[in-house]
Order: sequence, then C-alpha cells, then structure tokens
Amino acid sequence: MEERSPELKVGVLGAGTVGSQVIRMLTEQADDFEARSGARIRVNKVAVRRLDAPRDYDVDPALLTTHPEEAIDGHDIVVELIGGIEPARTYVIRALKQGISVVTGNKALLATHGPELYAAAAETGADLYYEASVAGAVPVVYGLRESLAGDRITKVMGIVNGTTNFILDAMASRGLSYEEALNQAQELGFAEADPSSDVDGFDAAAKCSILASLAFHTRVGIDDVAVEGITKITAEDMEEAAFFGRTIKLLAIAERRVGEDGKDGVAMRVHPALVPLDSPLASVDGAFNAILIEGEAAGRLMFYGQGAGGAPTASAVLSDLVAAAHHRAFGGHAPRESVYAHLPILDPGTAFTRYQIRMQVEDRLGVLSDVAGIFARHGVSIQSVHQRDDKEPGACVIVATTHLAREADLAAVAHALSHSPAVREVTSAIRVEGE
Amino acid sequence: MEERSPELKVGVLGAGTVGSQVIRMLTEQADDFEARSGARIRVNKVAVRRLDAPRDYDVDPALLTTHPEEAIDGHDIVVELIGGIEPARTYVIRALKQGISVVTGNKALLATHGPELYAAAAETGADLYYEASVAGAVPVVYGLRESLAGDRITKVMGIVNGTTNFILDAMASRGLSYEEALNQAQELGFAEADPSSDVDGFDAAAKCSILASLAFHTRVGIDDVAVEGITKITAEDMEEAAFFGRTIKLLAIAERRVGEDGKDGVAMRVHPALVPLDSPLASVDGAFNAILIEGEAAGRLMFYGQGAGGAPTASAVLSDLVAAAHHRAFGGHAPRESVYAHLPILDPGTAFTRYQIRMQVEDRLGVLSDVAGIFARHGVSIQSVHQRDDKEPGACVIVATTHLAREADLAAVAHALSHSPAVREVTSAIRVEGE
Repeated sequence: MEERSPELKVGVLGAGTVGSQVIRMLTEQADDFEARSGARIRVNKVAVRRLDAPRDYDVDPALLTTHPEEAIDGHDIVVELIGGIEPARTYVIRALKQGISVVTGNKALLATHGPELYAAAAETGADLYYEASVAGAVPVVYGLRESLAGDRITKVMGIVNGTTNFILDAMASRGLSYEEALNQAQELGFAEADPSSDVDGFDAAAKCSILASLAFHTRVGIDDVAVEGITKITAEDMEEAAFFGRTIKLLAIAERRVGEDGKDGVAMRVHPALVPLDSPLASVDGAFNAILIEGEAAGRLMFYGQGAGGAPTASAVLSDLVAAAHHRAFGGHAPRESVYAHLPILDPGTAFTRYQIRMQVEDRLGVLSDVAGIFARHGVSIQSVHQRDDKEPGACVIVATTHLAREADLAAVAHALSHSPAVREVTSAIRVEGE
Repeated sequence: MEERSPELKVGVLGAGTVGSQVIRMLTEQADDFEARSGARIRVNKVAVRRLDAPRDYDVDPALLTTHPEEAIDGHDIVVELIGGIEPARTYVIRALKQGISVVTGNKALLATHGPELYAAAAETGADLYYEASVAGAVPVVYGLRESLAGDRITKVMGIVNGTTNFILDAMASRGLSYEEALNQAQELGFAEADPSSDVDGFDAAAKCSILASLAFHTRVGIDDVAVEGITKITAEDMEEAAFFGRTIKLLAIAERRVGEDGKDGVAMRVHPALVPLDSPLASVDGAFNAILIEGEAAGRLMFYGQGAGGAPTASAVLSDLVAAAHHRAFGGHAPRESVYAHLPILDPGTAFTRYQIRMQVEDRLGVLSDVAGIFARHGVSIQSVHQRDDKEPGACVIVATTHLAREADLAAVAHALSHSPAVREVTSAIRVEGE
C-alpha cells in the first residue's frame, strides 16, 4: 500500500435505511475501506429530502444538503439510493456525464433505462455498478457479470422478492390464507401499504430482466418478462402442495434456449411454481433470496443470502464502491454493457414447463377419461392423476400433473378444461419447476 | 467494442482433464471470449509431459511442447494446471517475474507459497488469479476477494472437499462403512489410490487457509489449520447422527473472533461435524461444494456448486482468464494480496464448539451422575443425554451432547471420560456445528 492513499469524494443521494448504513460503515470502518480499495473514501455530501428527518445513523449535519446537485457535481463517485425512475435517472445521468462513477441499488431504473445509463458511463469512462439492485447482499450481479464470464449461461432461476417469499412462507408454515399472510407482512413492514409491485410480480420481473441481460449478453427489458403474481394462491393450494411433497415459491426464470425457428433465444417469466421440498429453493425462508445459475461448463451453482434490509443491501453497495474506488485510484474500469449476443426474445408461450391442475368434476363413471382426453387432444402428457371425494356432494376433485409441455399447450388445456361439461370448475393451475 | 481487438498469447501448462477443457472452450467459443474480454485470446503453446498422451480434447499438435519455458516466455498470460508445488512454483514465478499474468488452480501452491507469488506479481504488475483452487466452479475466491470487499467477514464455513463428501454421503445414504465407501469412491475415480490428502483433511485445510487469508486480510498458511480427517467415522456414528436428525460432513471453518487476550484473531479448523439435516450444508451431496460466509453487514451468504471435474474447474479458470485478459488489454489489475489486518492466529483450543460424545458405560445406578460430574468438573454444560441398553450385557450406551464450550475443555472431558472407571469406552466424540 502506498503511504498516502489518494482521497476520493463520495456523494450519497438518499439517507434512508440503506443510505444511513452505507454512511455509518464508511465512517466507522474508514481504515478498512482504505486498505481494501487503496483509496481514502470520504463521504463529502449527502442529499436528503428533509434535513431533520429521523435516521438510523446520525449523519454529520454539515454533510447534509437538500440540493442533490451538491452531492453530485465535482465528486468522484456518487451513490444513488433514492430509488424510482425520476428524479433518480436525471441525477445518475448527470453524474455519469461528468465522468463520475455511479453505484446504485435501483432495479427499476436499471430494468427500464439500463442501456441509456451504460451508454452514458461508457462515453466518459465512468463506472456503473448495481449489485444492490438484485437480491440484496447476494453477489449475483458480480457473479454473472464477472465471475462467470468464462462460461456460457443457460438458465437463471431464483427467488428474488422477499415480500412474496415471506407471504408464501407464512402460508406454507402456518396455514394462513393469502390475505392473512399479506396483512401480517404489512404489519411487520415486509410489505408496503400498496403491495402490488411485489405481489403482482413486477419487482421480480425487473430483477429477472437485469439478471437475464447479464447472463445472456442481450438487451432485455422488464416488458419482455411474462409475469404472474401470487394473489391467486390459496391456503388450499398450499395444503395440496405439501400433500405432494412440494411448496409454492414465486420464481423468476430466465432461459437461453432454442426457439421454434431453431435459433437460440431468451425467454423470461415470473410466476408462482410448485417446487419439490428437497430442492434447494424450497428451503429459502422469509426474506432470503436464492438464485440458481446453470452454466454449460460450471453446471449448477447457487447463490443464497439476505435479499433486503439496510445492512445487507449496504454491504452490496459498499463492495461496488470499493471496486469503483479502486478503478478511480489505479485505473481499469467496470465491465461495460455486454450485449454482443443480441439474442431474440422468445414467445413465452414456447417455454417448456409442467402444470399441476386441480379441478372439481362430476362424480360419475368416465369423467376421468373425459378429462384425460382433453389433455391428450392438446398433446399434453399426464404424469400423475389423483382423484378424491369432494366436500360437495356429487362432485370429486382431480389433481393432474403433466409432463413437460409447451406453455401455450398447457394454458390451452386449462382453458379447455374450464369449458368442458365434465368439469365444474378449474380451482387452480400452477406450474411445477425445479425437479 | 473496438473493431480489432488486441490479441493475447496464452500459454497453458498441463493438458489433463481441466487443461483440455480450457483449450477446447477457448477454441470453440473464441468469439464469445473476445466479446467478453475485449481481447482475442489465442492459445499459443501447451506444455505437456508426453506429446502423445491420450486427451479429452484433441489439442492441435503444433501447439504442444515438452518444454514448459516455451509456453511461458514471451506470453501475455500463463495458465498453470500441472498442480503440486514443484516444478509448478518455479514456472509460475518465472512467468510473474516477466510480467506475465498467471491463472492457476493450484491450491497446494497457493496455500504454501501464496505470499511469494503475490509479491512476484506485485513487483511486475502482473495479475495472479486462482479461482479454480477452491471449490471448482463456485466463485468463492471472487466472492471474498472482490464482491464482499465492502463488508467485514466474521466466518467462513464450508464443504470444500468432494472426495470426503462423496464418502460421507455414501455412508449416510446407503449405510456403508467407511472402508466400503472409500473403496467405492476409488472405483469411481472420486478418490485416489492413496487417499490420505483428502481423507486426512489436508486438501480441505489448504483451501481453508486460502479462504481465511482472503476473508480476514491476514497471511495464514496450511500449518495454521487444526486438522482432523474422516477416517475414524463409523457406520454407527452415521446411524446415530440420523437418529438425532443430523448428518456428518467434513467442514472447513475459519473464524475471526476475540481471542483470550481480548484482541481479534483468526482460528481455522478442519474436522468432521454433525450438521442438522435442515442446515443448507446437510443437503450438499456427492461432489458438490458449499461455502457459508457470514459478514457483519451481509449476514449469512451461501455459495454452492460443483467442486471438481474438468468442465466446472475449467469454467473457473476461464473466468479468471477473461479478467486477466481484460486488464492486459484495457489497464487495471487484479486485487493485490491484502494482509493489512495482520490478525494473530488463535490457539485452536480456544475455539468454541459442541461435542456429541458416545460412550459405553457400566449399567449400574449412579453411572449417569458420575458421567455428568466429569462434564461439570471441566465447566462443560450438557444440552442433552440419551441412555439406552447396549448389545453387550451389563453395559449401556450414553450419548451426551454439550452446549457450546471451549475446544480444549471439551477435549479434556473426552479424555477424562475415557479414563473414568464408570466408562468402559468412549466410542466417538464428534463436534456439532451449523445449528
């Protein structure tokens, strides 16, 4: 280490849960960060909305400003932690255009304006880092962007939203209904008053698109992801899952596979799925995140850790900051946007998956044959069927699990079943993954 | 991307299982590697012992040489895959001294001569990468060296040896004895004819010291690791473990903790341990590796994947190669050895762990009290005791599990028990971890 490390001025936008932790750690462990990055990282300005807001860590009032420009202009690195698209986008672009490296945890911004930010960074030679945007402390952005750069990734599948995982976990382990579990998540601060971005799957879709663009070297956006949330999952679904040795998780899945035209493409989807209890994904509890990555050479890898929270997310921000500081002090730069593969986005209907369909049918001879016929007519093969009496008289319940089939054919089966005279009601149709 | 990428000459030392895969992938996916690294990576020379040896991939004979110097001198990057200390050390130093970056998978070399290699690299500005030295395809070196650089690591614990994991797995799942499982591992090529480096724990200890030096920014060597292998584990131990809802794994554990003098230090140990079945480590099967990392801010993270094999290890080598090539072409360099913390190595006897001790005792009134008294006299608190009849007449079996206690005190209890008139024999004493 040099005797005098160069000093770097860092501006922080936002001093909420994560921002306060970042500032605390940079202050309390300044010597450690200097040793690790080779530079003295000094928090120079912190832009906040209200100077007197209560904070988890008492930021030196002399650092605070309500003018974000003051925490951007003339700095070496800007840490953006205000979230949302605007004004975050304007501030990040403002920094990058001045050649200031940016560390952000803003998944929405990355998923919608990633290419614009990358271009601005490349133009001035600034770094753009965003480990904290996906899966909190879990270094999966780093993993895909750098440590698996020697492999060809075929699939990324994971649990990337803590709110829905908490809700599903509460339903599975304590038999709660979706509404009860959601209420509890809201009371404990794990879900927002308006939970739609989480429970409808959009947060997971944003992360899915970020992971896919890194994994497949292709520019994809959140709109390329087929999304289904968890709001229709019932206590009965969860009970049924347990009966068959499975649990239900909201999965984000991005795959590189051969499309129907014979060429490689990328398919992305977010939906609840039945996962076998012995899958590593099944035991991911509460606010934890886990991401499985399949590489042609590496085989299957898994990254697991805390997906949210002030300190874990701050850990991700700070590792990015160390990398950016190291580059600033000693040369080199972060990996640029790597979209050389330009793979087409495949129609989600061409994905291969399995369905478990539960339906209420007439309790009469031949009904199973009628039902099985519908599967067969759509070219979908059944792996197992369970039949049992229903509480309702004159009815019984059939639970059919398919073999792998095209998503479009499976959806057509579910649709045809719901319109068949043999079937009173299709009560659930959930995909089966991870087996 | 520039229109013409700079070309980099790579020399490969060794074309065995991993080397062949590296050369195959570099050849078959040359365009991908160029896009990812920004440089044309050309395999220029491959040093082998025998020109006509059979190989997994047909390396162009024009590239082969039996003179390693020809695959080193004048190259941009050297990939060392011959293993062992000498002559690997001489070749790696020869490359680094010329400013040639080195990618190696040689854990023995790193664990014994790491500081010397780091110094040679720093002197000439060359990169030294060694992801493949620990846990095959699992990017844990990258994780500790770069993506967790923003955190203070407190513990690293993992399954890092595939051979012993295969053996223990076979004992647990198929009730084999240690000898039967070892024979099977040898037949299947998972264990060497002389298995001692694996089964006695030395391979895991080398990896443990590499992980610890990265995690704790302190120079440690393999001799600083307290090592116990798996050769004494019996089928009965495994059966007993299952009875208590646990399994036995060989763990490598490196901790940063407060020593008895009140100052932070590093403690490292490798030993078999009882792990609860619901721990993420318990389900790590066969040749897979898993590493848990605890960071002050990040909390608990886990990395999981294939720990050995040609293609997975080649994946790790190639990501290192991409990073080294990127630096060569665009500036910057790999993280240097980071030993600023200079933590002392703590006496392994001061580690805190738990023991499960199984013993055959006289079947008489008061024997449990005698046994419990021995624990008490050493200040070790018992968490649970199970007593049952033994097959042998006049004897019964006591299985006692302790609370957390000092390793030295626990060892003293085991010793005192084996010399107590109440105890016929201490049949096993295994640590309990991961709860």
